[in-house]
Amino acid sequence: MSENISFLGLGLMGTALASSLLAAGHHVTVWNRTPSKAEPLVAEGAVYADTPDKAVGASTLVIVCLLDHASVTQTLDGTPLAGRAVVNLTNGRPVEARQTADWVAERGGDYLGGGIMAVPPMIAKPGALILYSGSRTIYDRYEPVLSVVAEPRFTGADPESAPLLDMAMLTGMYGQIAGFLEAAALVRSAGLPLRDFVATLLTPWLNAMVAQQATWVDSFESGDHSTEVSNLEINRAGLENLVRTFREQGVKPDLLLPLKTVIDQRTARGLGNEGLSGLIEEL
Amino acid sequence: MSENISFLGLGLMGTALASSLLAAGHHVTVWNRTPSKAEPLVAEGAVYADTPDKAVGASTLVIVCLLDHASVTQTLDGTPLAGRAVVNLTNGRPVEARQTADWVAERGGDYLGGGIMAVPPMIAKPGALILYSGSRTIYDRYEPVLSVVAEPRFTGADPESAPLLDMAMLTGMYGQIAGFLEAAALVRSAGLPLRDFVATLLTPWLNAMVAQQATWVDSFESGDHSTEVSNLEINRAGLENLVRTFREQGVKPDLLLPLKTVIDQRTARGLGNEGLSGLIEEL
Ligand SMILES: NC(=O)c1ccc[n+]([C@@H]2O[C@H](COP(=O)([O-])OP(=O)(O)OC[C@H]3O[C@@H](n4cnc5c(N)ncnc54)[C@H](OP(=O)(O)O)[C@@H]3O)[C@@H](O)[C@H]2O)c1
Ligand SMILES: NC(=O)c1ccc[n+]([C@@H]2O[C@H](COP(=O)([O-])OP(=O)(O)OC[C@H]3O[C@@H](n4cnc5c(N)ncnc54)[C@H](OP(=O)(O)O)[C@@H]3O)[C@@H](O)[C@H]2O)c1
Repeated sequence: MSENISFLGLGLMGTALASSLLAAGHHVTVWNRTPSKAEPLVAEGAVYADTPDKAVGASTLVIVCLLDHASVTQTLDGTPLAGRAVVNLTNGRPVEARQTADWVAERGGDYLGGGIMAVPPMIAKPGALILYSGSRTIYDRYEPVLSVVAEPRFTGADPESAPLLDMAMLTGMYGQIAGFLEAAALVRSAGLPLRDFVATLLTPWLNAMVAQQATWVDSFESGDHSTEVSNLEINRAGLENLVRTFREQGVKPDLLLPLKTVIDQRTARGLGNEGLSGLIEEL
Repeated sequence: MSENISFLGLGLMGTALASSLLAAGHHVTVWNRTPSKAEPLVAEGAVYADTPDKAVGASTLVIVCLLDHASVTQTLDGTPLAGRAVVNLTNGRPVEARQTADWVAERGGDYLGGGIMAVPPMIAKPGALILYSGSRTIYDRYEPVLSVVAEPRFTGADPESAPLLDMAMLTGMYGQIAGFLEAAALVRSAGLPLRDFVATLLTPWLNAMVAQQATWVDSFESGDHSTEVSNLEINRAGLENLVRTFREQGVKPDLLLPLKTVIDQRTARGLGNEGLSGLIEEL
């Protein structure tokens, strides 16, 4: 079914999203602060609205993808939000999502926030995921539209859920990136073939290890961090050796050091026989 | 073909290794400092030697799996190493592997070192990997034996290669673990369903992201860290938001902080337009 959609914010991400909605046959009204960015979309069939007010007025479903939450409330201020479904795909902290949801509700609008787990070239392709939270009514009513741009996933009525889970996924990624960079730096320092190492050793190993870490959920939930695989004392010695090796190779182990500190800290509490999962209690 | 093998060191790992060699039909002579640990293996068909000297003397192929390199040279000191193939599966730093290889060579032995990428229950099962470096002659001659305990992988004639690659793999794993723990702590703090998050969001996401990171090898090799996906400035802002969110949730972001520091450092050099791969130059 073809829907009327208003889309505000035509940066890199907004343009990719709006473009995929047009390609799927929807009627899309677009607005952007810098009007020239709307031109490619108008060429694809979008209608241009020259104010946020007119853009919001054109459809029941209003999607915004702007720089931050401040730019969202600034842009939507004074527009006819009452009775409309506002889908906000702008990144922000959980607390900001709650504030914007409340702000929209005060103006009579319904709010669904989304955290985009993709970069613009991935939009409307397999692998792109958007986490949503807020109005289940909007989600259920517009799921087919949301499914055009990326696989949608409703994570709860609390508008804080999606940004929090989004940030937790980024957190996991940043840790992995830190380890990846240190591993690559070490291999490069030794003049060993880096491409082969990454493709045939590191990548399959990391994929296998995350499955191992996933089993720690039992310990996170029960608080029982006993282990039969590898305790903190063994990991402490291993990290000690690792850090010495980095220094011997002339590579800075800085990105690994706080893990070592937290292991030392937990071991100092007499919990060296626990597994790595127990470190969560120190965070 | 059934081989004569001497196996010294029957801790958790040594026992698992020796047991799998017996199960594969080899003639195994075993020794351990604490003799009682040999009993289960003798029950499986091993011959017990009561000194390292007799153990080494019993076979051309001598495998050792002890606590550290110091315990290896201490144990092998004075034994008849000349003309024998010494496979050392004891963990250590690359520089220690080189020293032990030289030490064995001075006594007329040939040396192959191995880094075990597995825990004892994984031995002789799919997924277990051992990285070897040192004597290619030993590796080629005994590859069928080595293949019994785990998938073997020869990484070079330099005895430092295997321990270095082993440590680089552990480095990647420790980074991933740090990110995993922080992500889990954040989700737990919000009272969101952790098991579901780990199984259906975090795990597939990390598996997808490591494939992304693997493409950075081009940049590591060329030194060209330009990006069309996400530059350091954007990641800097993202990490800033992340750290604020951790604080708002009452969770310590300590394990992520050095990555932030390194991004700040590189951005301060005026390289904020580069991608994350450029951070390797700061390590
Ligand atoms: N790009 C990604 O990979 C990615 C991934 C996930 C999530 N996101 C999120 O998606 C959102 C948009 O990102 P993007 O990549 O499209 O960013 P972008 O290319 O920098 O575009 C920013 C957009 O915000 C508008 N804007 C900024 N300040 C404004 C204000 N005060 N009033 C009105 N409009 C304002 C800009 O308008 P002008 O054109 O007039 O400057 C532009 O349309 C962000 O929240 C971002 O975190 C992006
Ligand atoms: N377990 C794992 O998950 C794992 C994984 C990868 C690599 N590794 C490596 O495999 C090696 C053995 O590990 P493991 O798990 O078997 O450790 P373990 O269970 O603690 O066994 C240690 C072994 O070393 C012997 N030993 C210690 N000091 C000695 C000395 N001075 N002289 C002679 N023997 C001595 C012990 O003899 P006693 O029985 O007399 O104490 C025992 O046989 C280590 O280098 C470890 O890093 C282990």
